[in-house]
Amino acid sequence: MSQIYERVALIGLGLIASSIAHAARRAGVAGEIVGYARSAETRGIAREIELCDRITETMQDAVEGADLVILCVPVGVMGDVAKEIAPHLADGATVSDVGSTKRAVIAAVQPHMPGHIHFIPAHPVAGTEQSGPRSGFETLFDNRWCLLTPLPDTSDAKLETFTQFWRALGSNVDFMDPDHHDLVLAVTSHAPHLIAYTMVGVADDLSRVTDSEVVKYSAAGFRDFTRIAASDPTMWRDVFLTNKDATLEILGRFTEELFALQRAIRTGDGEHLHDYFTRTRAIRRGVIEAGQDTDAPDFGRGGPN
Amino acid sequence: MSQIYERVALIGLGLIASSIAHAARRAGVAGEIVGYARSAETRGIAREIELCDRITETMQDAVEGADLVILCVPVGVMGDVAKEIAPHLADGATVSDVGSTKRAVIAAVQPHMPGHIHFIPAHPVAGTEQSGPRSGFETLFDNRWCLLTPLPDTSDAKLETFTQFWRALGSNVDFMDPDHHDLVLAVTSHAPHLIAYTMVGVADDLSRVTDSEVVKYSAAGFRDFTRIAASDPTMWRDVFLTNKDATLEILGRFTEELFALQRAIRTGDGEHLHDYFTRTRAIRRGVIEAGQDTDAPDFGRGGPN
Ligand SMILES: NC(=O)c1ccc[n+]([C@@H]2O[C@H](COP(=O)([O-])OP(=O)(O)OC[C@H]3O[C@@H](n4cnc5c(N)ncnc54)[C@H](OP(=O)(O)O)[C@@H]3O)[C@@H](O)[C@H]2O)c1
Ligand SMILES: NC(=O)c1ccc[n+]([C@@H]2O[C@H](COP(=O)([O-])OP(=O)(O)OC[C@H]3O[C@@H](n4cnc5c(N)ncnc54)[C@H](OP(=O)(O)O)[C@@H]3O)[C@@H](O)[C@H]2O)c1
Repeated sequence: MSQIYERVALIGLGLIASSIAHAARRAGVAGEIVGYARSAETRGIAREIELCDRITETMQDAVEGADLVILCVPVGVMGDVAKEIAPHLADGATVSDVGSTKRAVIAAVQPHMPGHIHFIPAHPVAGTEQSGPRSGFETLFDNRWCLLTPLPDTSDAKLETFTQFWRALGSNVDFMDPDHHDLVLAVTSHAPHLIAYTMVGVADDLSRVTDSEVVKYSAAGFRDFTRIAASDPTMWRDVFLTNKDATLEILGRFTEELFALQRAIRTGDGEHLHDYFTRTRAIRRGVIEAGQDTDAPDFGRGGPN
Repeated sequence: MSQIYERVALIGLGLIASSIAHAARRAGVAGEIVGYARSAETRGIAREIELCDRITETMQDAVEGADLVILCVPVGVMGDVAKEIAPHLADGATVSDVGSTKRAVIAAVQPHMPGHIHFIPAHPVAGTEQSGPRSGFETLFDNRWCLLTPLPDTSDAKLETFTQFWRALGSNVDFMDPDHHDLVLAVTSHAPHLIAYTMVGVADDLSRVTDSEVVKYSAAGFRDFTRIAASDPTMWRDVFLTNKDATLEILGRFTEELFALQRAIRTGDGEHLHDYFTRTRAIRRGVIEAGQDTDAPDFGRGGPN
């Protein structure tokens, strides 16, 4: 692939930024990749593993002269970062982000953007439970979806270039209204994460079942929840605080349905349970057919394939 | 390994039975493996793939002359199967099961067992979302735990022999009181399964988010729930109906905690959320250290390792 941007600046060097760096190198779409992270420790690791072509000591140095700047920090600090970099952005640069919520990020970032800047909010729907500069890998975005929630006045040319960039990283690209994005992600990501965190917390708290028992007998379902609940606490706190309405709406629907199933258990209504459990299999087939998961049993973890 | 039983009869030929057959062959612990399944279709597949040394047309033929009989059917039909095989069991044979709940299985099976039979209830805590005779594999039980819930009057010698059998299949073996078993599994398996089924059902039902959106953007947490919710509906209906009390108790604790987290989201209590999400990481470390899951990110599914 040929170069799309001359200089790409990554602000924050965690899982998503480091995966962008690897994938951008694989695709050869960036003339230079510059990175900045808050802590000296992260910057040191990034230099040691040669994650970027250059790691700067300040945000200002990172964004200077970059024609693409991507904010890869927790959604709660996007606004602060936007404010700090704003005066130093190159003329006509594209600024984007990878935040898991979109309405709040737009509200926090957009007011700081000078008129000459093209701000295109984005969310690559891909991730793992790990974080930090060592956790990224070049295939993270392959065959996943990157959702762009462009503002009404975005230039077609800039949007097209930016779309090409994400396609070059391996992603499919879709466009969505920010509010609808936040609702869809509340269903496919935010509510499931809160539920997994809750279940693991309950298991941890129970006095009649020891943590050692929980761990030893986790292979029957629970361990999948522990993986989800091992995700970064700061990132997820920020996600819930910036997508309150949609998350609470979905959790409301969830508890309503859970109560109906609890009642079916209590009253011994096997037919209700069986019907419900049969219906949910179709969605799984859809996920496999869409290539969004492996159909190796147990994710292929120790299975035959 | 040397032979432990002369003839092992498997009643039901699904995921667990077929995995037992493969693992018993690998270990050479059974002189002969005989199998029976309800449907002609399953028996036909079992013959075709040579799952057992012999597939019989009746339960009676399967158990005759077997010194170990293992019931590998849904927990709701254990009692019927026990009743049907009881008159045909060999003198002094050991009968066991693999049911996911133990108190109800004991109550259903034990009354049918003649005095000369040694009934040792068991539950291998291992599985995948798949089912049927083709889904088993020889490593399913490796480094997993098999829980035995022996009755008070069980012969030490028979119990020791049966323990050796499960160890030979690759399992670790633990002993537990049936009620405690049902509580522990409600935490590590039954409640998580009901929660996953519920969340997938909710996503399926929402009119404002299409199934196609749910599927496309499932890589951010939801797809793991769809895997769990793809498990066999009959098996799971039976599990919930035979472990009502413990499941409902744990779900009660779960909703209590979920409400507290929902309130924290509503009131913007980031500290509560951050603390909660930090605490749950310790359990994940325990699961990895105990070898009950891989620490490859995302279960190694498409990740770098
Ligand atoms: N993880 C996922 O699955 C996933 C998926 C899609 C989108 N996202 C989104 O991607 C973004 C980054 O997530 P990630 O998983 O890559 O996180 P991560 O691995 O935890 O990395 C976060 C990075 O942000 C930096 N940072 C944190 N607070 C900062 C602050 N106040 N000022 C400046 N820099 C700060 C950190 O610097 P230090 O290392 O120096 O602390 C770190 O380099 C988040 O908005 C998240 O919602 C995540
Ligand atoms: N799956 C897991 O993750 C897991 C883990 C640990 C324990 N268990 C327990 O293991 C047992 C079997 O589960 P599995 O996953 O192996 O199930 P499976 O793959 O669905 O197989 C069930 C088997 O039981 C037979 N069967 C069903 N109803 C029957 C009846 N009324 N009479 C006689 N046979 C009948 C089926 O015969 P047909 O094929 O002819 O219908 C099939 O061979 C259950 O008690 C379950 O609780 C399951």
